[in-house]
Amino acid sequence: MSGVSNDFYCDEVLNGKTQVNRVYETDRVLAYHHTRPYYEHHVVVIPKLHVGSLISGEAENTEELLLEVLRVIKMVASDMVRQTGAAKVVTNLGDYQESKHMHWHVVSGQTIR
Amino acid sequence: MSGVSNDFYCDEVLNGKTQVNRVYETDRVLAYHHTRPYYEHHVVVIPKLHVGSLISGEAENTEELLLEVLRVIKMVASDMVRQTGAAKVVTNLGDYQESKHMHWHVVSGQTIR
Repeated sequence: MSGVSNDFYCDEVLNGKTQVNRVYETDRVLAYHHTRPYYEHHVVVIPKLHVGSLISGEAENTEELLLEVLRVIKMVASDMVRQTGAAKVVTNLGDYQESKHMHWHVVSGQTIR
Repeated sequence: MSGVSNDFYCDEVLNGKTQVNRVYETDRVLAYHHTRPYYEHHVVVIPKLHVGSLISGEAENTEELLLEVLRVIKMVASDMVRQTGAAKVVTNLGDYQESKHMHWHVVSGQTIR
Protein backbone atom coordinates (compact mmCIF):
# COMPACT_ATOMS: atom_id res chain seq x y z
CA MET A 1 0.00 0.00 0.00
CA SER A 2 2.67 2.46 1.02
CA GLY A 3 5.26 1.33 -1.49
CA VAL A 4 5.63 4.80 -2.94
CA SER A 5 5.45 6.66 0.36
CA ASN A 6 8.52 8.22 1.86
CA ASP A 7 7.24 8.92 5.34
CA PHE A 8 8.20 5.99 7.57
CA TYR A 9 7.08 7.91 10.66
CA CYS A 10 3.46 8.54 9.66
CA ASP A 11 3.12 5.21 7.80
CA GLU A 12 4.74 2.91 10.34
CA VAL A 13 5.65 4.42 13.69
CA LEU A 14 2.92 6.89 14.59
CA ASN A 15 0.07 4.55 13.61
CA GLY A 16 1.60 1.67 15.55
CA LYS A 17 2.26 -0.63 12.55
CA THR A 18 5.92 -0.78 13.53
CA GLN A 19 6.29 -1.18 17.27
CA VAL A 20 8.92 1.06 18.83
CA ASN A 21 10.71 1.21 22.11
CA ARG A 22 9.78 4.60 23.55
CA VAL A 23 12.35 6.72 25.36
CA TYR A 24 10.15 9.72 26.12
CA GLU A 25 6.89 11.18 24.87
CA THR A 26 4.82 14.35 25.11
CA ASP A 27 1.45 15.07 23.51
CA ARG A 28 3.19 16.30 20.38
CA VAL A 29 6.64 14.69 20.35
CA LEU A 30 7.94 11.10 20.45
CA ALA A 31 11.48 9.87 21.16
CA TYR A 32 12.23 6.19 20.60
CA HIS A 33 15.12 3.80 20.00
CA HIS A 34 15.85 3.56 16.25
CA THR A 35 14.45 0.29 14.91
CA ARG A 36 17.58 -0.29 12.80
CA PRO A 37 20.22 1.73 14.68
CA TYR A 38 23.31 3.08 12.91
CA TYR A 39 25.10 3.66 16.23
CA GLU A 40 25.38 1.79 19.52
CA HIS A 41 23.09 4.44 21.02
CA HIS A 42 20.56 5.80 18.53
CA VAL A 43 17.38 7.62 19.49
CA VAL A 44 15.05 9.31 16.99
CA VAL A 45 12.96 12.35 17.97
CA ILE A 46 9.92 13.26 15.83
CA PRO A 47 6.88 15.53 15.99
CA LYS A 48 3.65 13.49 16.00
CA LEU A 49 2.06 15.89 13.51
CA HIS A 50 3.32 15.59 9.97
CA VAL A 51 6.05 18.16 9.36
CA GLY A 52 8.15 17.58 6.27
CA SER A 53 11.48 18.80 7.63
CA LEU A 54 13.14 21.52 9.68
CA ILE A 55 12.82 23.86 6.68
CA SER A 56 9.46 22.83 5.24
CA GLY A 57 6.56 25.26 5.10
CA GLU A 58 3.49 23.52 6.60
CA ALA A 59 1.27 25.54 8.93
CA GLU A 60 2.03 22.86 11.55
CA ASN A 61 5.76 23.68 11.41
CA THR A 62 5.59 26.34 14.12
CA GLU A 63 8.29 27.63 16.42
CA GLU A 64 6.24 26.34 19.35
CA LEU A 65 6.35 22.78 18.01
CA LEU A 66 10.06 23.10 17.17
CA LEU A 67 10.77 24.22 20.74
CA GLU A 68 8.92 21.18 22.09
CA VAL A 69 10.98 18.93 19.79
CA LEU A 70 14.15 20.67 21.02
CA ARG A 71 13.12 20.25 24.67
CA VAL A 72 12.81 16.49 24.13
CA ILE A 73 16.11 16.39 22.20
CA LYS A 74 17.82 18.16 25.13
CA MET A 75 16.46 15.62 27.62
CA VAL A 76 17.44 12.63 25.47
CA ALA A 77 20.88 14.09 24.69
CA SER A 78 21.55 14.97 28.34
CA ASP A 79 20.76 11.38 29.35
CA MET A 80 23.00 10.03 26.58
CA VAL A 81 25.91 12.27 27.62
CA ARG A 82 25.46 11.13 31.23
CA GLN A 83 25.43 7.48 30.17
CA THR A 84 28.04 7.45 27.38
CA GLY A 85 30.03 10.68 27.77
CA ALA A 86 28.96 12.14 24.42
CA ALA A 87 26.16 12.69 21.92
CA LYS A 88 25.65 14.06 18.43
CA VAL A 89 22.37 15.70 17.39
CA VAL A 90 21.64 15.58 13.64
CA THR A 91 18.85 16.36 11.21
CA ASN A 92 19.13 15.84 7.45
CA LEU A 93 17.57 17.93 4.71
CA GLY A 94 17.02 17.75 0.95
CA ASP A 95 18.74 14.76 -0.68
CA TYR A 96 20.25 13.74 2.68
CA GLN A 97 16.79 13.26 4.21
CA GLU A 98 15.50 9.76 3.50
CA SER A 99 12.08 9.87 5.15
CA LYS A 100 10.23 13.11 4.49
CA HIS A 101 9.00 13.70 8.04
CA MET A 102 11.12 15.90 10.33
CA HIS A 103 13.29 13.64 12.47
CA TRP A 104 16.32 14.26 14.63
CA HIS A 105 18.94 11.63 15.43
CA VAL A 106 20.59 11.64 18.86
CA VAL A 107 23.50 9.21 18.64
CA SER A 108 26.60 8.05 20.47
CA GLY A 109 29.16 5.25 20.23
CA GLN A 110 30.49 3.16 17.36
CA THR A 111 28.65 2.84 14.06
CA ILE A 112 27.12 -0.63 13.85
CA ARG A 113 26.03 -0.85 10.21
CA MET B 1 47.64 33.17 26.26
CA SER B 2 44.66 31.04 25.43
CA GLY B 3 46.56 27.76 25.28
CA VAL B 4 44.36 26.16 27.88
CA SER B 5 41.09 27.63 26.67
CA ASN B 6 38.61 25.50 24.83
CA ASP B 7 36.31 28.18 23.47
CA PHE B 8 37.48 29.09 19.97
CA TYR B 9 34.37 31.20 19.41
CA CYS B 10 34.78 33.60 22.33
CA ASP B 11 38.60 33.62 22.12
CA GLU B 12 39.01 34.03 18.37
CA VAL B 13 35.85 34.64 16.35
CA LEU B 14 33.62 36.89 18.44
CA ASN B 15 36.42 39.25 19.45
CA GLY B 16 37.62 39.53 15.85
CA LYS B 17 41.08 37.93 16.39
CA THR B 18 40.28 35.40 13.71
CA GLN B 19 38.59 37.05 10.74
CA VAL B 20 35.60 35.16 9.41
CA ASN B 21 33.53 35.27 6.28
CA ARG B 22 30.02 36.09 7.49
CA VAL B 23 26.99 34.41 5.95
CA TYR B 24 24.30 36.03 8.12
CA GLU B 25 24.11 37.84 11.42
CA THR B 26 21.54 39.05 13.95
CA ASP B 27 22.16 40.93 17.21
CA ARG B 28 22.59 37.64 19.03
CA VAL B 29 23.58 35.06 16.41
CA LEU B 30 26.40 34.75 13.87
CA ALA B 31 26.64 32.39 10.88
CA TYR B 32 29.97 32.22 9.02
CA HIS B 33 31.96 29.98 6.71
CA HIS B 34 34.08 27.54 8.75
CA THR B 35 37.71 28.71 8.78
CA ARG B 36 38.95 25.13 8.27
CA PRO B 37 35.96 23.44 6.61
CA TYR B 38 35.40 19.68 6.84
CA TYR B 39 32.96 19.73 3.92
CA GLU B 40 32.75 21.53 0.57
CA HIS B 41 29.99 23.68 2.10
CA HIS B 42 30.46 24.26 5.82
CA VAL B 43 28.76 27.04 7.76
CA VAL B 44 28.95 27.41 11.56
CA VAL B 45 26.10 29.02 13.53
CA ILE B 46 26.81 30.33 17.05
CA PRO B 47 25.16 32.49 19.70
CA LYS B 48 27.22 35.63 20.38
CA LEU B 49 26.72 35.22 24.12
CA HIS B 50 28.70 32.44 25.73
CA VAL B 51 26.55 29.34 25.99
CA GLY B 52 28.44 26.12 26.69
CA SER B 53 26.32 23.77 24.61
CA LEU B 54 22.76 22.84 23.69
CA ILE B 55 22.42 21.13 27.07
CA SER B 56 24.43 23.45 29.33
CA GLY B 57 22.79 25.30 32.19
CA GLU B 58 23.78 28.98 31.91
CA ALA B 59 21.11 31.61 32.51
CA GLU B 60 21.90 32.83 28.98
CA ASN B 61 20.86 29.47 27.51
CA THR B 62 17.22 30.44 27.08
CA GLU B 63 14.60 29.06 24.72
CA GLU B 64 14.35 32.51 23.15
CA LEU B 65 18.04 32.47 22.22
CA LEU B 66 17.81 28.87 21.00
CA LEU B 67 14.89 29.84 18.74
CA GLU B 68 16.95 32.68 17.27
CA VAL B 69 19.83 30.27 16.62
CA LEU B 70 17.35 27.87 14.98
CA ARG B 71 15.89 30.64 12.81
CA VAL B 72 19.37 31.40 11.46
CA ILE B 73 20.10 27.68 10.98
CA LYS B 74 16.88 27.35 8.97
CA MET B 75 17.83 30.26 6.70
CA VAL B 76 21.38 28.97 6.15
CA ALA B 77 20.19 25.40 5.59
CA SER B 78 17.43 26.48 3.19
CA ASP B 79 19.99 28.39 1.11
CA MET B 80 22.37 25.40 1.15
CA VAL B 81 19.60 23.02 0.02
CA ARG B 82 18.69 25.42 -2.79
CA GLN B 83 22.33 25.67 -3.88
CA THR B 84 23.54 22.09 -3.37
CA GLY B 85 20.40 19.94 -3.07
CA ALA B 86 21.06 18.86 0.51
CA ALA B 87 22.23 19.86 3.98
CA LYS B 88 22.99 18.25 7.32
CA VAL B 89 22.53 20.15 10.60
CA VAL B 90 24.69 18.91 13.50
CA THR B 91 25.64 19.88 17.03
CA ASN B 92 28.04 17.86 19.18
CA LEU B 93 27.92 17.35 22.93
CA GLY B 94 30.13 15.98 25.70
CA ASP B 95 33.31 14.31 24.41
CA TYR B 96 32.22 14.94 20.79
CA GLN B 97 32.20 18.72 21.35
CA GLU B 98 35.66 20.15 20.76
CA SER B 99 35.06 23.84 21.50
CA LYS B 100 32.91 24.40 24.55
CA HIS B 101 30.67 27.09 23.09
CA MET B 102 27.37 26.02 21.49
CA HIS B 103 27.88 25.74 17.75
CA TRP B 104 25.89 24.15 14.98
CA HIS B 105 27.38 22.87 11.72
CA VAL B 106 25.36 23.21 8.51
CA VAL B 107 27.19 21.16 5.89
CA SER B 108 26.85 19.71 2.42
CA GLY B 109 29.03 17.99 -0.17
CA GLN B 110 32.18 15.87 0.03
CA THR B 111 34.39 15.82 3.10
CA ILE B 112 37.59 17.71 2.33
CA ARG B 113 39.82 16.82 5.30
